[in-house]
Amino acid sequence: MPLLAPTRPVTPVHSLSLLLPNCWAYHSIKFAQFPFLLPRPSNCMLGFTAVLRRQQFLIRALGGSGEKVRSRGSAAGIKVMARGNFEADAEKVLRRITPALDPTRHKGQAGKIAVIGGCREYTGAPYFAAISALKIGADLSHVFCTRDAATVIKSYSPELIVHPILEESYSVRDEDEGFISSKTVAEVAKWIERFDCLVIGPGLGRDPFLLDCVGEILKLARRSNIPVVIDGDGLFLVTNNLDLVSGYALTVLTPNVNEYKRLVQKVLDSDVNDQDAPEQLLALAKSIGGITILRKGKSDLISDGRTVNAVSTFGSPRRCGGQGDILSGSVAVFSSWARQTTAEVDATFSTSNPMVLGCIAASALLRKAASVAFESNKRSTLTTDIIEHLGRSLEDISPAC
Amino acid sequence: MPLLAPTRPVTPVHSLSLLLPNCWAYHSIKFAQFPFLLPRPSNCMLGFTAVLRRQQFLIRALGGSGEKVRSRGSAAGIKVMARGNFEADAEKVLRRITPALDPTRHKGQAGKIAVIGGCREYTGAPYFAAISALKIGADLSHVFCTRDAATVIKSYSPELIVHPILEESYSVRDEDEGFISSKTVAEVAKWIERFDCLVIGPGLGRDPFLLDCVGEILKLARRSNIPVVIDGDGLFLVTNNLDLVSGYALTVLTPNVNEYKRLVQKVLDSDVNDQDAPEQLLALAKSIGGITILRKGKSDLISDGRTVNAVSTFGSPRRCGGQGDILSGSVAVFSSWARQTTAEVDATFSTSNPMVLGCIAASALLRKAASVAFESNKRSTLTTDIIEHLGRSLEDISPAC
Repeated sequence: MPLLAPTRPVTPVHSLSLLLPNCWAYHSIKFAQFPFLLPRPSNCMLGFTAVLRRQQFLIRALGGSGEKVRSRGSAAGIKVMARGNFEADAEKVLRRITPALDPTRHKGQAGKIAVIGGCREYTGAPYFAAISALKIGADLSHVFCTRDAATVIKSYSPELIVHPILEESYSVRDEDEGFISSKTVAEVAKWIERFDCLVIGPGLGRDPFLLDCVGEILKLARRSNIPVVIDGDGLFLVTNNLDLVSGYALTVLTPNVNEYKRLVQKVLDSDVNDQDAPEQLLALAKSIGGITILRKGKSDLISDGRTVNAVSTFGSPRRCGGQGDILSGSVAVFSSWARQTTAEVDATFSTSNPMVLGCIAASALLRKAASVAFESNKRSTLTTDIIEHLGRSLEDISPAC
Repeated sequence: MPLLAPTRPVTPVHSLSLLLPNCWAYHSIKFAQFPFLLPRPSNCMLGFTAVLRRQQFLIRALGGSGEKVRSRGSAAGIKVMARGNFEADAEKVLRRITPALDPTRHKGQAGKIAVIGGCREYTGAPYFAAISALKIGADLSHVFCTRDAATVIKSYSPELIVHPILEESYSVRDEDEGFISSKTVAEVAKWIERFDCLVIGPGLGRDPFLLDCVGEILKLARRSNIPVVIDGDGLFLVTNNLDLVSGYALTVLTPNVNEYKRLVQKVLDSDVNDQDAPEQLLALAKSIGGITILRKGKSDLISDGRTVNAVSTFGSPRRCGGQGDILSGSVAVFSSWARQTTAEVDATFSTSNPMVLGCIAASALLRKAASVAFESNKRSTLTTDIIEHLGRSLEDISPAC
């Protein structure tokens, strides 16, 4: 019996495909289980109306016209939605992208991750992200943070490599800002080619000088074609500077409720629409040039502007701080693994976007680990307890050998 | 039943002895199990050709001439090689060199180790090396590192004695360099006679001023006849300054794939030759004046320019960073123990070089501990988990009482 019994039957993703008149290309839009917005199964007429409304929204979001649209497969889509089973087969994704442990491989081939975060105030968040990456199976995990934060983060664990290179305004004179900024970016540049993914934001803080430096690091990552997962204060940075990530397909944003709200207001100039959550997320991701967005919530929704997936298996009712950091570190590892296996994955899943697959896998693993940790620790469950269950939870789904 | 069942039957070392015309001395060359280069047992002719080729290489590497060589015992060597069983009897070595725990002995007699390493960026590596020495059974373990690193390394464990004496360029003015360097070496000189072995390199970094100081410490160790195990950035230092170790028989180098590649290029002016790996390693060790080299890989190969041994028991498919640090700390302890028991060991093994015996023992113990740790932790196995299994793994092979 699995450690985490899903609260509802889990079925593979089903597709509702629309042929869009303005580009004459098919967009496969996959919906998952959104009990908060779906009609009750017994009320088919209401369900049909809701689907039609959603279709219209999608067409508008994707630049088409409601009058001209021709629908393919929508009847099947409506039927499936009325059943209420739309969950991504996240465990299958996990199994497919997690690489076999091969004794002939050498250090680094299972993943090298770096977290950019950690300042005078925050040290736990970058630690959680970096150690989660190792606990899932990455070989090396680095943290780039301020000097104050480095001593503390190093002391949490000898397993991490911590670079005390970031500076905050309080330690930099105005006339030195240009020099310090260039030096900081040059330090990261020495290492960046070695990394499979950067996690930008956990415990970064909002110091303007520090955020400017991190903006430059983000540009460097983009020039170097290194994937980035952006969370926490990194989202504050990119929400105010969308050009940093717009059109860079190797980007994942992992906003929580408030971060998502700011993003929607900034990009779509509207409020969050929970009734049409997947459509709005799809439109948002598309508007930022096809980056991947993982909207954290009761169900995690994931879109890259072409598809929408959801992971809704129940995790834990505990909302202790730090779980988002586990998620960002996990997305970094899984998306790196997915990038190595994309060719094989293509034939199995409707999306081959490794950033999306990485999000699905990370979301499912965190939920499973949180569930097991809660089973043992109940109200006293902390992020550290969940991290301790990442390995066993992954092993249950995708045994190492 | 042993905790780690070897993947192949393990048999004692067999010898292929060559009489070399230029020095008229016997060189006992022991080959181990190299499945990637050995002929299949059923193909004896191919095997015979491979052995001849290898013989010719060895003769050239050792300064002899193929035409003039007279072989003793080569037929037996060929026969054994065709069977494909060449593994060193590492557990026997471990049992013979591990000293009995005697209540009459006092603190320090089971080993006093010092690690030279730990800088602003790296603190985990020197900790792993130093704590591994203690966990195996050394009595005292010191770390000499920079001030920044010292606070952190001290916080990892109260068991270590940590000296914050090294300096990096950023904290030293040009005009003070000579003074600071002399002061640093003088601090180490106060202690060095007490140590049975120095481990030089884990987490040392590549700061030029720091490396210059460590070069001076290496010269001091050599003048004091203190054995040295060199790993990580220490290998970067000696690869660029071979005179530091050349001809100093109490030296062990423990290169990984990339470090070995740089060493071969620098010393032999050629690329790594995996087909003739033992011969190339033998030539390399001989070229640096008979120091011992432990080439880390799927099989660990060990040579002092006279013999080649291998340890191939399967450890773990995890390649998390830090395992090399366990190895370097372990080689320091086991080679120190082997130096105390060499007279007894002489009659049992074909080599009496304590540095080689220390490498064999350390390699075997790390692999066993890694195997047990992986059994429990699978993909989430980290270096700390392996260290926790060093004691039990040694106890299984060589019970304390």
